[in-house]
Amino acid sequence: MRRRLFAASLLLGLVPAHADEGMWMPSQLPQIAKQLKAAGFKGRPAALAELARPPMSAVVKVGGASGAFVSKDGLLLTNHHVAFGVIQYNSTPERDLIGQGFIAADRGAELPANPDYRVLVTTGFDKVTERILKDARGKQGRAYYDAVDAATKAVVAKCESEAGNRCSVANMYYGTDFYLIRQLELRDIRLVYAPPDAIGNYGDEVDNFVWPRHSGDFTLLRAYVGRDGKPADFAADNVPYVPPAHLQVSTEHFADGDFAMLAGYPGTTFRHRMASEFANQIDWQLPSRVALYDGMIKTIEAAAASDADAKVLYAAQVASLKNGLKRAQGELDGLRRSDALRVRRDDEAAMLAWLGKQADAAATQADIDASQAVLDAAVAMRERDQLLANLRSQSQLLRAALTVQRLALERGKPDPQRESGYQQRDETLISGQLKQVQRRYAPAVEQALLADLLRQYQALPAAQRVPEFDAVFGTTPAQLKARLKALYAGTRLGDEAQRLRAMQAPASELAASSDTLLKAAAILTPALVRLEDEAKTRDGELLRLRPAYMRALIGFRRSQGRAVYPDANSTLRVSYGKVSPMDPRDGVRYRPLTTVAGIVEKHTGVAPFDAPQPLREAIAKGDFGSTAEPSLQTQTVDFLTNLDTTGGNSGSPVLDARGRLIGLNFDSNWESVSASWMFDPRYKRAIHVDARYLRWLMAKVYPAPHLLREMNLPPE
Amino acid sequence: MRRRLFAASLLLGLVPAHADEGMWMPSQLPQIAKQLKAAGFKGRPAALAELARPPMSAVVKVGGASGAFVSKDGLLLTNHHVAFGVIQYNSTPERDLIGQGFIAADRGAELPANPDYRVLVTTGFDKVTERILKDARGKQGRAYYDAVDAATKAVVAKCESEAGNRCSVANMYYGTDFYLIRQLELRDIRLVYAPPDAIGNYGDEVDNFVWPRHSGDFTLLRAYVGRDGKPADFAADNVPYVPPAHLQVSTEHFADGDFAMLAGYPGTTFRHRMASEFANQIDWQLPSRVALYDGMIKTIEAAAASDADAKVLYAAQVASLKNGLKRAQGELDGLRRSDALRVRRDDEAAMLAWLGKQADAAATQADIDASQAVLDAAVAMRERDQLLANLRSQSQLLRAALTVQRLALERGKPDPQRESGYQQRDETLISGQLKQVQRRYAPAVEQALLADLLRQYQALPAAQRVPEFDAVFGTTPAQLKARLKALYAGTRLGDEAQRLRAMQAPASELAASSDTLLKAAAILTPALVRLEDEAKTRDGELLRLRPAYMRALIGFRRSQGRAVYPDANSTLRVSYGKVSPMDPRDGVRYRPLTTVAGIVEKHTGVAPFDAPQPLREAIAKGDFGSTAEPSLQTQTVDFLTNLDTTGGNSGSPVLDARGRLIGLNFDSNWESVSASWMFDPRYKRAIHVDARYLRWLMAKVYPAPHLLREMNLPPE
Repeated sequence: MRRRLFAASLLLGLVPAHADEGMWMPSQLPQIAKQLKAAGFKGRPAALAELARPPMSAVVKVGGASGAFVSKDGLLLTNHHVAFGVIQYNSTPERDLIGQGFIAADRGAELPANPDYRVLVTTGFDKVTERILKDARGKQGRAYYDAVDAATKAVVAKCESEAGNRCSVANMYYGTDFYLIRQLELRDIRLVYAPPDAIGNYGDEVDNFVWPRHSGDFTLLRAYVGRDGKPADFAADNVPYVPPAHLQVSTEHFADGDFAMLAGYPGTTFRHRMASEFANQIDWQLPSRVALYDGMIKTIEAAAASDADAKVLYAAQVASLKNGLKRAQGELDGLRRSDALRVRRDDEAAMLAWLGKQADAAATQADIDASQAVLDAAVAMRERDQLLANLRSQSQLLRAALTVQRLALERGKPDPQRESGYQQRDETLISGQLKQVQRRYAPAVEQALLADLLRQYQALPAAQRVPEFDAVFGTTPAQLKARLKALYAGTRLGDEAQRLRAMQAPASELAASSDTLLKAAAILTPALVRLEDEAKTRDGELLRLRPAYMRALIGFRRSQGRAVYPDANSTLRVSYGKVSPMDPRDGVRYRPLTTVAGIVEKHTGVAPFDAPQPLREAIAKGDFGSTAEPSLQTQTVDFLTNLDTTGGNSGSPVLDARGRLIGLNFDSNWESVSASWMFDPRYKRAIHVDARYLRWLMAKVYPAPHLLREMNLPPE
Repeated sequence: MRRRLFAASLLLGLVPAHADEGMWMPSQLPQIAKQLKAAGFKGRPAALAELARPPMSAVVKVGGASGAFVSKDGLLLTNHHVAFGVIQYNSTPERDLIGQGFIAADRGAELPANPDYRVLVTTGFDKVTERILKDARGKQGRAYYDAVDAATKAVVAKCESEAGNRCSVANMYYGTDFYLIRQLELRDIRLVYAPPDAIGNYGDEVDNFVWPRHSGDFTLLRAYVGRDGKPADFAADNVPYVPPAHLQVSTEHFADGDFAMLAGYPGTTFRHRMASEFANQIDWQLPSRVALYDGMIKTIEAAAASDADAKVLYAAQVASLKNGLKRAQGELDGLRRSDALRVRRDDEAAMLAWLGKQADAAATQADIDASQAVLDAAVAMRERDQLLANLRSQSQLLRAALTVQRLALERGKPDPQRESGYQQRDETLISGQLKQVQRRYAPAVEQALLADLLRQYQALPAAQRVPEFDAVFGTTPAQLKARLKALYAGTRLGDEAQRLRAMQAPASELAASSDTLLKAAAILTPALVRLEDEAKTRDGELLRLRPAYMRALIGFRRSQGRAVYPDANSTLRVSYGKVSPMDPRDGVRYRPLTTVAGIVEKHTGVAPFDAPQPLREAIAKGDFGSTAEPSLQTQTVDFLTNLDTTGGNSGSPVLDARGRLIGLNFDSNWESVSASWMFDPRYKRAIHVDARYLRWLMAKVYPAPHLLREMNLPPE
């Protein structure tokens, strides 16, 4: 019924307002307490407001994603794919933890993670807007940017002067507000329980972004600290970390329509960007990326057609381009399906009409107009910027030459002033990249790829061309062909030792080098630095100007009785909604709960659908006990909600109306790839492991009664 | 809930008994009146019992499929794809009725069908078992077969002696009962109303066997007779035929779960075959067909790889093999998914156990054992029979040579005694086929294909090999290669004129021909005739013996309180059930009604998803009036039921509980491809055009108010 109304409104060009959108800062939850209660939340919204206190402090950053403490002894639940590096690190040919899974029989058997694996527990979250913007006020462009940057670094340095603290400043509402986030950095993390990969990653790439899903994507870790209770590197006599809070895994059942909420660290969204930015994304960025990637794939495949070695060397790059193309096309399809540009334009027009009646209309409108001018300037150069970015990211030898020259340039500065990515601490990474070249480079393919990109560059209007690039590559296809040939004939960077030597060479030696690619890079580098400076100036202006747009939006929404969440920026957010089916197209309904029957249906005996025998036997036996969903009379596996998520929400705990953990977020559906720009309630869904599946696996299939006990869960 | 129980029972290896299976003879409906009423039927089952009386007499055979009269003036509703030949016959480049559709403004504007288009109205249906079997009793094998054949021909000839009658004898329950079917053959059929192909066939091959579906697969024809009321060829002053009954199109709404029934002419099913035949089909016929077709496709593609002309010549054959392979694989997957062999074996074992306790057990069991021995003999030769059948059906020149020699052989007999397919009336068709050769033949490809098949033949054990084939093609791969080369080097049958000349040549001239392929065919033909005779002997034995098995099954079912329908054989059958969703796999539900929103979703502007502009505009306008489904608030398009159908049911009217027409059957879902062998209530569905979509199209999109009036329907 509901979707029919949506379908009808789609035809009429209306997308209804919806309560389910929102990645709220915990501190905003008291503001929207009424809606939260109306949606079914049974707890105290105020209790959720402070992310350094229970229960929010149970939600932590794990690797690049999320997780939650589930026992008072530092037991930590996250996704199998988030902990995959830890599992891999402990796997050997003799002891295949990836394939076989792992259960630590006791704490002594828990396995240390790779030494760089980190868990961050938030201990402070304070508004520092005044401190960050004080010096910037009155400045413009690059100066504004630099002032914010300097203030941020100062605040962070002061915060980190306390041992064990990891600090950062989060920019909310595009420069409107700044928050200092203080986190405890736990460094001794151990592997406690992992299902076999064929459960944790059942379906792998084939099922990626797919619903219905049947993956048991979870793993248990444990955080340890020194005997003094402080963060410490691994040591045998470290003790389990006692977290400020932990979540209780639910033993209640839930079903379609039940309240759900989720807390985690979503990465980046663009929901509050200006309508012109939506237009740029939908009308140009995505379609042109699709065309560009498609062209590059064809170029690589043609150039490598008769060379089996080259095919292997470029397999990863082609796969990555195909994946990028698929995602861009998916995002584009989604934004078009949701008529996102029209929706955003209408909303912006309504906002500006409202603004016109406000007291500060003129000043705000002036800033908005100035933002638009900055964006327009960037749009005027978008073809060039796209091509130059790919020239670098899609090449190996050219990129190596540019990196070497840039590093030499940056080395001339004191380390703290070097460009990020070229500081002393980055040099190991750079030399690693220079070593990698050999495994992904064939001269003929790289030249074909560069010829492809540079031909497009040469066809740009003069205003978009860069003198240094014209000088190096010429301005006609004939020149291009000859120059590329000469560049690759006269370079020795194809040799690993030469690249590493060049990386260490002093600037004077590089300047005098007769290597053709190094000489070209020496000419191109100042141009790239200049373009970067221009971009930073634009970024600074936008940092200064965007708050006007955001304040207008917040005011307009307030006039509609609605709150505004800041776009996602890898800080802790809360989303609420419900267990929810989806109607992907006319005549088809996706049910919100999958069951073990689907594991059997998908099972082929061949990866990624090779369900382990113990799992298949347990399913056939049908002994599900208290974890079986009563209305379905069988064991559930994964479930679907309409919660608002994006990349970074992997491992986020999903909670019921009373704050008990009912699942673990691990993916979203393909139809919601475009949700980073627009939340469309018809299509946006998040995919979670059902905690009942986890409990069943731990009770009956790969039993770990001691861990169930530790989590205060029944042993069956 | 229901499907979960099914899913669970699948795991436990049980398929529940189900009431919805059944292609009932109308005469059986009083027998199952109680079930019919329980399912929701509101009419009198007895009224459905006689297929020569209303309302069953409204259901007619149209082309190879079904249809129904919908007005007292001979207006006839069937599928667009069933009437496609009529539409095509009337289309010209100037007047594209396929692309544009057609509405006859009045009766004078109705367009005559191609002259061989026929509609058959059943006027009699009488049991003639005694007359058919009288002379056969006491005989065996070929003699039994010939006696049944002769009695059948005599009964038909007597019946057809009355002008306008078209008669046939239907064999029910595999030789248990025989019925004489008397039909009126209407020869003046005219096109009245057809939607554009882009509506009638929306989705075409892409959506074939697919649900959700969005096709308006219907067309209206009208039957005419001479002024004397008798069947007649087309004449301008013919008058509309007044059918014995017609159906009323419903103006009521219906939804998920509502009662539905369907009447039509399903072609062939194998539901009551013996368990050993299920085993042969599932364990050998289907897998070996998949492998054989796959091999032939690869052989053709390899042989034609470097020859663009050959690729074109064999495109249709490759497409047909791929389609055959896909269907065989679909049927195999379905039968395995339903665990059909185990289910049938368990059922047969239970039947035999029951039989053991009956009075006539010994005699019946003896006939069943004898049937099994006949089937075993066929199974012993199945590899050979499959290869020889394909040798003929997949070749062009070899087949032409075999046809020419066989025709010469048959011409030596009086026409009525000639083998069917080689009688005088078949010669036009044969010469047409011989002309077609040029359009589908390349010597290298045919030789590669024959080499592929004959290599497999040569590898068979001696007991399966045929001396004449060994003589012609040799017994080693080396011989085969040389013989094939010589056969195709020394034949002139590649030339159309030569083939047609050979077809007309007397047997003596053919016997003396030096053409290598004709000489080979002369050797092979007697062997093929011998194998055919053996097959007919087996068929005769099975005709004699199978009734024992069927009687046992009927008795066993009666002991379970269940009736048995005869396997489908292109006679009128009735199936009842309900409007029904389907759960194709865990987590996915197919809703039973599609809507116009799906037409818009699928529309790409490119065939087969190029919805005509008037349709898209009408959808956007949303002016659906009384045809809109109230609970969905929009216009429905197609719907799904669990009715029992198979090929031949195209155009079958779908009726509600009061016998009003609510839809028109036109397809089934992919999951039910295996239903010709086994009805699995979890997966068997039939796909129908919703009569409300038809009414809406005729009211608002391509209006024909005069036809709505004639059908006693409101003009909107």
